[in-house]
Amino acid sequence: MSSEGAPRVERDGDVVRITMTRAARRNALSREHLGQLLAAVTEAGESDATGIVLAAEGPVFSAGHDFADVAGAALPEVRSLLALCTELMQTIQDVPQVVLARVHALATAAGCQLVASCDLAVAAESAGFAAPGGKGGWFCHTPMVAIARNVGRKRAMELALTGDVIDAATALDWGLVNRVVPDAELDSAVADLIGRATRGSRASKAWGKQTMYAQLDRPERDAYTTAIEVMAAASQLPGAVEGMSAFLEKRRPVWTD
Amino acid sequence: MSSEGAPRVERDGDVVRITMTRAARRNALSREHLGQLLAAVTEAGESDATGIVLAAEGPVFSAGHDFADVAGAALPEVRSLLALCTELMQTIQDVPQVVLARVHALATAAGCQLVASCDLAVAAESAGFAAPGGKGGWFCHTPMVAIARNVGRKRAMELALTGDVIDAATALDWGLVNRVVPDAELDSAVADLIGRATRGSRASKAWGKQTMYAQLDRPERDAYTTAIEVMAAASQLPGAVEGMSAFLEKRRPVWTD
Amino acid sequence: MSSEGAPRVERDGDVVRITMTRAARRNALSREHLGQLLAAVTEAGESDATGIVLAAEGPVFSAGHDFADVAGAALPEVRSLLALCTELMQTIQDVPQVVLARVHALATAAGCQLVASCDLAVAAESAGFAAPGGKGGWFCHTPMVAIARNVGRKRAMELALTGDVIDAATALDWGLVNRVVPDAELDSAVADLIGRATRGSRASKAWGKQTMYAQLDRPERDAYTTAIEVMAAASQLPGAVEGMSAFLEKRRPVWTD
Repeated sequence: MSSEGAPRVERDGDVVRITMTRAARRNALSREHLGQLLAAVTEAGESDATGIVLAAEGPVFSAGHDFADVAGAALPEVRSLLALCTELMQTIQDVPQVVLARVHALATAAGCQLVASCDLAVAAESAGFAAPGGKGGWFCHTPMVAIARNVGRKRAMELALTGDVIDAATALDWGLVNRVVPDAELDSAVADLIGRATRGSRASKAWGKQTMYAQLDRPERDAYTTAIEVMAAASQLPGAVEGMSAFLEKRRPVWTD
Repeated sequence: MSSEGAPRVERDGDVVRITMTRAARRNALSREHLGQLLAAVTEAGESDATGIVLAAEGPVFSAGHDFADVAGAALPEVRSLLALCTELMQTIQDVPQVVLARVHALATAAGCQLVASCDLAVAAESAGFAAPGGKGGWFCHTPMVAIARNVGRKRAMELALTGDVIDAATALDWGLVNRVVPDAELDSAVADLIGRATRGSRASKAWGKQTMYAQLDRPERDAYTTAIEVMAAASQLPGAVEGMSAFLEKRRPVWTD
Repeated sequence: MSSEGAPRVERDGDVVRITMTRAARRNALSREHLGQLLAAVTEAGESDATGIVLAAEGPVFSAGHDFADVAGAALPEVRSLLALCTELMQTIQDVPQVVLARVHALATAAGCQLVASCDLAVAAESAGFAAPGGKGGWFCHTPMVAIARNVGRKRAMELALTGDVIDAATALDWGLVNRVVPDAELDSAVADLIGRATRGSRASKAWGKQTMYAQLDRPERDAYTTAIEVMAAASQLPGAVEGMSAFLEKRRPVWTD
């Protein structure tokens, strides 16, 4: 059963696609499944791929935590489960690849947090998003860390407090996803955006992505201190040297890093 | 006069409604009125209500500080007035209830800050919002702390520097309010949203709301450190236990906390 | 050549207009040009003007750094170039005047950062915005510090990772600019907004603008600590005294500071 439920990992050119296949379990993020996803993202992160697409099969993108893991569990067990879940979210931000969520259906709680934690997200028109803990008994504390950093404050409070589902158009308006397309066009829109987002020097982009997350939540002047140093150092790398030489010589660059 | 001008406090089911009734004074936030509002919110906060609606009567929702309190006052007096005002704003965020602003008309300066400080806000189409200090002689420094955390940076600068009024539709677009409805539907929209936002375990929601404000402005990893610990501890509370049991037993939950 | 390429500085009433005139170089931010812009902004900042409009001539608003400055430069040279560029961006935020970007055309990389760093921005319909480093070899690390603080996180990642151009309407929707108008109406829209944004006491507004940047990225309670103290002290200045007196005496205020 455990290997049966593992995410399917496929390589298509420079992109690794990781697909949750536990459709019957609504792709719930059980401890086992979190571990499998973390292993898959970590392995893709160590590969020479330039992009990772996180996808899912079945009627639900992901329903978040599996209550069977939590019901009756003592505090230290739940803490370690949440720490594992957070490790997955942070690994998505730490890997050098661009990570894009392909959201074909409902994403709730930690499933919605997955979308919020990816660098980019493309949703089908029939997708939906919610943080339902707030209308039940276990508030979506950790999911809201990621979700609130994608949408405005009043919208974050609305999602967290009502637990209601917002549709894909609202998610686009609020900045939780980058594109919404008819369901039939989801794969072509994903291919287009991940293609655009993975152009250029991969070393330059990897450092760029990581520096973005390092500076985003910090006071602007602190952020500049980091960004100046990184950007000056990055100017010495082969990607920058080649990019600027090609521009000045009016030729197409060839990326080697 | 002082009791005459006190906000009207009404209980309707699980919701406390606090209504500013100083229509002739444009519900200005005089030192006395700030004290009355703080007392009303604090008392509602200590009650078993699940929600608080902050409303107003008259042609203006609230015009902010009463210049009669400030003109000629020495610095320590003004500091203590602003500290009292800030205590009201923070108490709105600290109380365990969901606090929703019902904005029927113009909200300016600290009156707009009140809306920005509430967890949620519903506005009538004829409402308006402004931080007018910037076009006069006393900049809206403290109001902008709350307002800027609801809208984007360029929009915050525009509000602060021009002092111009934005209409309700713009406030919705910028994320300062959650709903805009025709004036005649304001009460039903308020009832609908506060109802949706107060479902579930009240203890779970109270901790949820407070953790949201504790994590929102912090670097993401620091926010996770707090959220993991709170969410693990929250899993041991009656609300979480009941919510997960009910879900797994496919029955309706009964909230006792 | 150096004085030839210096920005044109004109005074129109209370507004200083600084216009980049290196059209043939796409107003690239070479070390020399950064120094000229910094000098012009600093000098305008020390004048009695109330507003500064940053404009440009030619087919491009500004293409950002000049690769001729960077190609082959050692790390310390690039670091000092980026430090100079950052000093320009921070000076725009530090000067007491309201600074408004008049964006008539494409603004890319550090050129887009200029727009993001101004207090306000008005764009012509044919303007565009991009952070193209991410699709090349030198990621836009420092530009993204400013750009990401204007737009949401997913949108910042899209700009940074794809390097694609967004049009003026998208920039307005995302909050990177305050107004978008037909090209022919750009100057009148700029005059209208800078006029609205520079009303009132200039001393009050200067402190207001600076306090905004001091509090924006900080936890809300820390921000209040600063804002309370500044606002209490500001209540003692001539602008506040005059503004409140005029309001209470129902007369027009006369600003002397």
